[in-house]
Amino acid sequence: MTVQGFWRSSLDPERVMNIYVTHWKEYVQQQREDHVTVEEPFEVRLNHRNLAVIMRTPGHDRELAMGFLFTERVIHQADDVQTIEDAMDDEGLPLTNVVNVILHPRERQGSLIQADNNEHDSVFERHFAVSASCGLCGKNSIDDLMLTVPPLEVEDLRISASCIYELTRQLRIGQDVFTHTGGLHAAGLFTSTGELCLLREDVGRHNAVDKIIGHGLLHNTLPYSRHILMVSGRTSYEIIQKALLARIPCIAAISAPSSLAVELAHQSGITLIGFLRDHAMNVYTHPERII
Amino acid sequence: MTVQGFWRSSLDPERVMNIYVTHWKEYVQQQREDHVTVEEPFEVRLNHRNLAVIMRTPGHDRELAMGFLFTERVIHQADDVQTIEDAMDDEGLPLTNVVNVILHPRERQGSLIQADNNEHDSVFERHFAVSASCGLCGKNSIDDLMLTVPPLEVEDLRISASCIYELTRQLRIGQDVFTHTGGLHAAGLFTSTGELCLLREDVGRHNAVDKIIGHGLLHNTLPYSRHILMVSGRTSYEIIQKALLARIPCIAAISAPSSLAVELAHQSGITLIGFLRDHAMNVYTHPERII
Repeated sequence: MTVQGFWRSSLDPERVMNIYVTHWKEYVQQQREDHVTVEEPFEVRLNHRNLAVIMRTPGHDRELAMGFLFTERVIHQADDVQTIEDAMDDEGLPLTNVVNVILHPRERQGSLIQADNNEHDSVFERHFAVSASCGLCGKNSIDDLMLTVPPLEVEDLRISASCIYELTRQLRIGQDVFTHTGGLHAAGLFTSTGELCLLREDVGRHNAVDKIIGHGLLHNTLPYSRHILMVSGRTSYEIIQKALLARIPCIAAISAPSSLAVELAHQSGITLIGFLRDHAMNVYTHPERII
Repeated sequence: MTVQGFWRSSLDPERVMNIYVTHWKEYVQQQREDHVTVEEPFEVRLNHRNLAVIMRTPGHDRELAMGFLFTERVIHQADDVQTIEDAMDDEGLPLTNVVNVILHPRERQGSLIQADNNEHDSVFERHFAVSASCGLCGKNSIDDLMLTVPPLEVEDLRISASCIYELTRQLRIGQDVFTHTGGLHAAGLFTSTGELCLLREDVGRHNAVDKIIGHGLLHNTLPYSRHILMVSGRTSYEIIQKALLARIPCIAAISAPSSLAVELAHQSGITLIGFLRDHAMNVYTHPERII
């Protein structure tokens, strides 16, 4: 790095850089030491071939790779993966920020995963979906998704409002890098009684959720069908889609959902909460679960 | 849409939906009418072939398509595009949420734009860049970008701190949908004396910036080499990259930048400001422009 005074922080050298900034308050300026969150590219290879480069905050990289492959629907279960390992150069030395995922041989020949030559297509097919003859709309997107992913059926789950109100405080306590840099999105996985199971942070909102899901794949704790997912920002279609694939029945967010997030949560049986602040919240879908 | 009580708002029917939510305050719940921002898929076709589907807030769609093509480096100037039009079905009726971009014939044969069969590759080549032999790092990404995009050289531009302090208020005044829904990212383009030229909002942070850049392409006002870009959230590598392509010398954000955003701004000659709140700010790079 070449910015003057840009160096790894002793607080968390992998994820925090120190930097000198010019701080202005009204019309007085001063040089001041500050922190920024590390953002670095990360390459996921599938059977030694380049699949995607993701901008992310380092840490929990294998979780991110597994979660990404799962939520992009390249893999459908942990068992589809034989090995996940650091990629190596020609001399057998590990490459920085590159991970290699080897699929189980049966999957390489199977119908779920396309042959090597078509891997790029399989990841991006969602983005290149054939549109309906009348054009595109959110309803098409949801209908397409629902053809392959059944809605949740968690009739008996009940979550108390007091438990939901506690989530923000717990997320904030757990967010150690955020406290220093203010620069990270966080996602937290909680039990239905509000115990924090897992917290992940990233410059990318989607990455934080993929890391949580990837952890479940690596530790055989998916589906998260009795859990709550809390995210620090807004909720969009993609966040709900990821949660649905991990079978999470309740999502809480500090900010607003989009229309398509609300519609997908409604149709897939997910309780969606927004504007969770100061012992207040909006329940957008499936309010019957909150007591 | 099938959520009970989900209907187009009279305030802004294209971009705001009304909805009934269950509002909780402490342990009292009530049904209440509320608003959410519309998120809908949008398909960009290049020479009648599907190129990408973007989740976005409707409005300024042609700007979004142009800005997206430019910042993904499929086109290099407005003149590369012959026509931008609603896509049609087989009977000549316009398709909803689908736009078709026809490249100028010389570009279809030229070296800048790859042949039809390789269009997908050209858009996504950035995501599939060959990594360096030692692995990947932010320095590789910046070096690759700098090979084709020269740094800015705007030695004489000076911007007053008082002008920067006024940007947040102006952005908020202009953000009409946000005021109703709290659910949108905003990007504003200002002159170097702080006059608002253009404001765009979207559920996607990148989309709001792409719309601003697309407007310049459609109205022949690029490069924005004497302007300030203000964004409502954080700044990441991709936001700085987009601004660099539009030749914007100053970026201000309400929240934190990432390490790679700082590094790219430093190397490309962009003044990067973060934590712009309450007449205070951090200037991360090129502070000499702020007086």
